[in-house]
Amino acid sequence: MNRENLFVKIVLNAWELNIKRASSTIEGFTDDDLFTEISPGKNRVVYLLGHLTAVHDNMQPLLGIGERMYPQLDEIFVSNPDKKIKTLPPVKDLRANWTNLNEVLASKFHKMPVEEWFQKHSSISEEDFAKEPHRNKLSIVITRTNHLSYHWGQIMLAKK
Amino acid sequence: MNRENLFVKIVLNAWELNIKRASSTIEGFTDDDLFTEISPGKNRVVYLLGHLTAVHDNMQPLLGIGERMYPQLDEIFVSNPDKKIKTLPPVKDLRANWTNLNEVLASKFHKMPVEEWFQKHSSISEEDFAKEPHRNKLSIVITRTNHLSYHWGQIMLAKK
Repeated sequence: MNRENLFVKIVLNAWELNIKRASSTIEGFTDDDLFTEISPGKNRVVYLLGHLTAVHDNMQPLLGIGERMYPQLDEIFVSNPDKKIKTLPPVKDLRANWTNLNEVLASKFHKMPVEEWFQKHSSISEEDFAKEPHRNKLSIVITRTNHLSYHWGQIMLAKK
Repeated sequence: MNRENLFVKIVLNAWELNIKRASSTIEGFTDDDLFTEISPGKNRVVYLLGHLTAVHDNMQPLLGIGERMYPQLDEIFVSNPDKKIKTLPPVKDLRANWTNLNEVLASKFHKMPVEEWFQKHSSISEEDFAKEPHRNKLSIVITRTNHLSYHWGQIMLAKK
């Protein structure tokens, strides 16, 4: 296995491992459990589920692998804090979005030619990328894996 | 910059960014704040501080860059859950261990020849590494960065 393949494999392995763990935690919650706050007065699990789905979905345009599938989640789960928007989508839909998106991303990630992971993502200019070549598509997945871990650690606190 | 250098840079950048953010959060806490639980009945911030220090310190033997500096932390912050061991080291020492270790690791990480990051870490056999070359030293830093993010997300909940 050449080095480029190896890098991609390390990064995707870490992503998938964390998605798997977070999914398993979320699946262990009843619909009622999803409305538990991770700590008194803080975000509810359902908010973090929608937030992670929206942020992960946004990797599609960032990595140039497709359009957003659930842009409607941004208003509720990214632009506004939890409890600001009173009416949430049905929990059933949020769960389905999460699962579906994970499958779509896994499939697209594995289809992406290795060389493409070393190209720039869509929110950096050609000029900046020439100076900072580490800001490539692979670095987006590393950053999002850390963001996922950050919120998964919080979601774990709502486990009974 | 060649691909190997680039990849090491991406991984170390992510590590340093998260260490910097977590340190800034911890420095923002008073000594009393450190004894706040991240959620009722859950770990106190001070436990997570000791836990992260111990786990990060353990990267030294894992990566072959030195002996443990604070092995005494394991008993209190890794082998046992929070509040099991009643007498903790002084907070001043725990803060100093964290800061000192971060500096030592940053320095050692930057001195490590790029090629060495692609060698096996000390807890995998030559035989397994031959089959799974992605389990190299660099993958340890990626895993530990995710672990750090996981607990940093929890520590953030104790912020006032």
